[in-house]
Amino acid sequence: MNFIHNSWDLKCRDPFGALPMGSLITLRIYGQNLSSVQLRTLFNENEIFYSMSPSTSLNMWEVTFKIPDSTGILWYDFKFETGSDTFTYGTKGNRIGGDGQIYKDIPPSYQITIYESKRTTPKWYKQGIMYQIFPDRFNRGSDFNLDHFPAKTILHPQWSDPPHYYKDTTGHIEYWDFFGGTLSGITEKLDYLKSLNVSIIYLNPIFKSKSNHRYDTGDYMSIEPILGNMDNFETLMEECEKRDIYIILDGVFNHTGDDSIYFNRYGHYPGLGAYQSPESPYYDWYSFSHYPNDYACWWGIDAMPNINELNQDFQSFIFKNHNSVIRHWMRAGVSGWRLDVADELPDSFIEGLKTAMLEENSESVLIGEVWEDASRKVAYNQLRTYFSGFELDAVMNYPFRETFISFVMGTISARIATLTMMSLYENYPREQFMGNMNLIGSHDRCRVLTVLGEADEHSNHERYRLNNDQYHLAQKRLKLLSLLQMTFPGVPCIYYGDEAGVQGFEDPYNRGTYPWGKEDEELIGWYKKITEIRANNSVFQDGSWKPYESSDDLFVFERRNEDTCCLCLFNRSLKAVHLFQHPIFSECEGINLLTDKPIPLNPVVIEPLSYQIISINL
Amino acid sequence: MNFIHNSWDLKCRDPFGALPMGSLITLRIYGQNLSSVQLRTLFNENEIFYSMSPSTSLNMWEVTFKIPDSTGILWYDFKFETGSDTFTYGTKGNRIGGDGQIYKDIPPSYQITIYESKRTTPKWYKQGIMYQIFPDRFNRGSDFNLDHFPAKTILHPQWSDPPHYYKDTTGHIEYWDFFGGTLSGITEKLDYLKSLNVSIIYLNPIFKSKSNHRYDTGDYMSIEPILGNMDNFETLMEECEKRDIYIILDGVFNHTGDDSIYFNRYGHYPGLGAYQSPESPYYDWYSFSHYPNDYACWWGIDAMPNINELNQDFQSFIFKNHNSVIRHWMRAGVSGWRLDVADELPDSFIEGLKTAMLEENSESVLIGEVWEDASRKVAYNQLRTYFSGFELDAVMNYPFRETFISFVMGTISARIATLTMMSLYENYPREQFMGNMNLIGSHDRCRVLTVLGEADEHSNHERYRLNNDQYHLAQKRLKLLSLLQMTFPGVPCIYYGDEAGVQGFEDPYNRGTYPWGKEDEELIGWYKKITEIRANNSVFQDGSWKPYESSDDLFVFERRNEDTCCLCLFNRSLKAVHLFQHPIFSECEGINLLTDKPIPLNPVVIEPLSYQIISINL
Repeated sequence: MNFIHNSWDLKCRDPFGALPMGSLITLRIYGQNLSSVQLRTLFNENEIFYSMSPSTSLNMWEVTFKIPDSTGILWYDFKFETGSDTFTYGTKGNRIGGDGQIYKDIPPSYQITIYESKRTTPKWYKQGIMYQIFPDRFNRGSDFNLDHFPAKTILHPQWSDPPHYYKDTTGHIEYWDFFGGTLSGITEKLDYLKSLNVSIIYLNPIFKSKSNHRYDTGDYMSIEPILGNMDNFETLMEECEKRDIYIILDGVFNHTGDDSIYFNRYGHYPGLGAYQSPESPYYDWYSFSHYPNDYACWWGIDAMPNINELNQDFQSFIFKNHNSVIRHWMRAGVSGWRLDVADELPDSFIEGLKTAMLEENSESVLIGEVWEDASRKVAYNQLRTYFSGFELDAVMNYPFRETFISFVMGTISARIATLTMMSLYENYPREQFMGNMNLIGSHDRCRVLTVLGEADEHSNHERYRLNNDQYHLAQKRLKLLSLLQMTFPGVPCIYYGDEAGVQGFEDPYNRGTYPWGKEDEELIGWYKKITEIRANNSVFQDGSWKPYESSDDLFVFERRNEDTCCLCLFNRSLKAVHLFQHPIFSECEGINLLTDKPIPLNPVVIEPLSYQIISINL
Repeated sequence: MNFIHNSWDLKCRDPFGALPMGSLITLRIYGQNLSSVQLRTLFNENEIFYSMSPSTSLNMWEVTFKIPDSTGILWYDFKFETGSDTFTYGTKGNRIGGDGQIYKDIPPSYQITIYESKRTTPKWYKQGIMYQIFPDRFNRGSDFNLDHFPAKTILHPQWSDPPHYYKDTTGHIEYWDFFGGTLSGITEKLDYLKSLNVSIIYLNPIFKSKSNHRYDTGDYMSIEPILGNMDNFETLMEECEKRDIYIILDGVFNHTGDDSIYFNRYGHYPGLGAYQSPESPYYDWYSFSHYPNDYACWWGIDAMPNINELNQDFQSFIFKNHNSVIRHWMRAGVSGWRLDVADELPDSFIEGLKTAMLEENSESVLIGEVWEDASRKVAYNQLRTYFSGFELDAVMNYPFRETFISFVMGTISARIATLTMMSLYENYPREQFMGNMNLIGSHDRCRVLTVLGEADEHSNHERYRLNNDQYHLAQKRLKLLSLLQMTFPGVPCIYYGDEAGVQGFEDPYNRGTYPWGKEDEELIGWYKKITEIRANNSVFQDGSWKPYESSDDLFVFERRNEDTCCLCLFNRSLKAVHLFQHPIFSECEGINLLTDKPIPLNPVVIEPLSYQIISINL
């Protein structure tokens, strides 16, 4: 039996991918000996059936229709008759598009994301290179001062020591350990970041808080004193502006700290916190099941009481008021926000926040912390509308990290990697796909070198370091992975220190300090080179993307714009690959972008654990 | 039946107390209807019996004999016949001298300490006022520098935070916490110490070590880098000398650290440590029962491997060689040593060390950490010879602390306090009694204010602070206790911060920081006054001492020299005491030394929880 629909083939689905509301779309199938074909669509629980008609091409059936005039997901699949039998056709189980398969019952549907085409993402963001900084661990500035530390904090005098949780016998963190990075410390290293072609800095939280990660906000309106003061912040902003570097802050609005102006459990702040009295102006921000000690909190951690984000007073404080948190910091120079645990924030909250951002700066950017395909994320039984056009400009692209680490490590084939990325490419509105925050490392994952070097899970995680062989392997793999990151669609984000050889298992060991003076200079040189390739070749910033099928070990894609086509080849195996045939080989001569020298095509040789980036002028 | 011997009464024992070898002594008893009296003496297991003869006084019997010509303890008691019955007579059970009692069997004997009269203790020591400093906690000097901290140490940025042990799950200390006091910090506060009339500083260990207490020596020949360097040490010495302040170092020779040049368990030091190889030059310093992991160590703490102090090479290194530890630091300006855990050091080791000290400086002083009556301390079944004349000049007088805290708190009567002190007075050679290091606080005991304020034992020891009423009581009690300390025979030692209101339970809370800027100014004013009284009145430095019997609540003694007699009265009760009769009242008019004004005698009024120090010119 023969029945084919490939959602990634323009012959079957035109246009490709996510669509603006009310677009016309044509869907086609190929099938022999069919007596009838029906298209079934599902949108907001409304089923519509379309009869498909034979097209002018042999054995092709088609239908053209207008997709709904509102945002959401249109699901579709097919039903066809051949002889006296009825079959259905949908995606291959995992709801990844492309080729599908025949079923007898209701099949897993194809997805069309429908969005409102509000605007294109600002170029400074889309075309930028991002650098994530965990502020306590990046650099002690010349303004570092022990007097800025509050009581019952502890400092590692030695910058190179491993982080450590000092817990009491019940497992609670009793003393937060600090290394004493400061905002001025960042300012003092801007030229270093510039040498890495960084144009965007994403800062983990910097507001006054008790912990070293500062996701337990104490005061949204002030800079954590250990990090510096408003003057230091302003200087950072000014020096960034001089260097065309944009700043993105971490917006943590799902919860506050219990040690905060708002909750004030310990009475460390003036005024009346919710914990202290039901008369507190902040009482309704929180949800007490049994006042004062039973309250909703993040992951059961009572140091982080949850906020009811639908509370109007909270929304006024965060983004509606003239002097609200979002507006205050944007007027101070911030260009974007990364929304912590976006899945826990109601869509209306995110939409209101985004509206306020655009009122302050039409060129601002909102990035969500979403760990999966954000186009169809369901949270609390509700399809999220992140990409409706009113909410997120981008999300943290954890699927990128998982997929390509798995590819480089040999646990998935190039084909699976391609399918996974194609699925995102299809489901994400184009602006969101091109704005994907493509990360390899973050404060929530093991350091990439530790993963790539196949560190021993059963070792002492605080002390463990790769041996020389492991490190050498990890370094080679990271070169491949980071080059892939720099050539891939989306905004590459470097987690501070990954470029300098920092290792570490999970939290807190993934939050070690930047190794000033002990950097892996080879890696840094590498990052300088590849970020320069990214920054100097606009095809990587805004070119179209097209993957090619290949062997298990070779991941291949093309980036293309009006002037240039770039073929990017990544060989994860320990054998050289000789590629003799490729659609673009016949057309032109290539330039190896890593050496800036002409490269012979047909065959292209890709050495073991290596890569080729070949630019072809059109 | 009547039989009396009171060893504190010159009519019964002449001369009083400890005696130089070969002295003549006369012992007398009072008894009616006795047919014969025998004196039994015991010295080094040799029993000698002397028949006593009736004296010229009615009912008195006496014997005069020469005590042995070697050092040790001569024990004595009596045997007498009355009618057909035979009885014995000795001390009252506890072997405290004074009045005894009648027994049927062998009684607890009286003690005569026999010493070799080598020299008198130097005046700088005997007449001084001492101040004990735990170096990490006294003062961060202007040279404080984070770079001086080794890896895996942690610092409390806030000077006022409580100390804390950061232990791993097995209870081992994983990270030593530091506050960052430095030698320069001490130098910068010498004028403050001078304002307290301090003339001797006893420093807890300052040699390179892993821990914050530094009793786990890593290198006897260098200053711990966190504390400073040799330059800082020399400056401290010079500035002390300018101010006539003498320095006593802590000598920790019973064990080293496992992280040391000598043991080198972790290979942090160059060279070959005993742990690393039996070929190590230090191997024989230690005692391995099973190499390398089973070795003798202090109190089972494997971070402190025990030394075999009889090892000749170790002795050469510590005190015999020209450049030995003791000599090196003495030539650098140190005037004395406090011997840590003296009970664990062989007498021959202490004697050798003392000899070396005297060779370097005939005016040097050696103080032992002994917790009980040091004249008859038995360790490992052997009577120690600390006071033979060849070893210690003084010991830490913990009995002083225990006795007078108990008296002030109301748990023992003035009579018991008197008996306990009289016993030391009798048993200690005069020089050692006058050189007693009279301490109220130390790094090994709860802070005195916490004790005196009756702190709640069941509280959180890290956070607990006395309430206002408790503090007020503690402060009043401390005034009484410290005045008693300043007027008592022996060298008063102030544990840093006790004069400034520092509180704290046991280790590590008794090692909190000196509260610069938050001192109890009233207490500091008090200490300035009483140390001045001590320093300006030689009668307290070298006068004789005589206690007087009184009520339970009133502790009374007299200090006397050629010019002056001082009557010191301490009322621990909450009722005023009116003292109408006292042997010295009739003689003269008095001056209240605390007000420098004449004071009416007969009665002397001692207010509740108060004192009178009355000076009478003879």
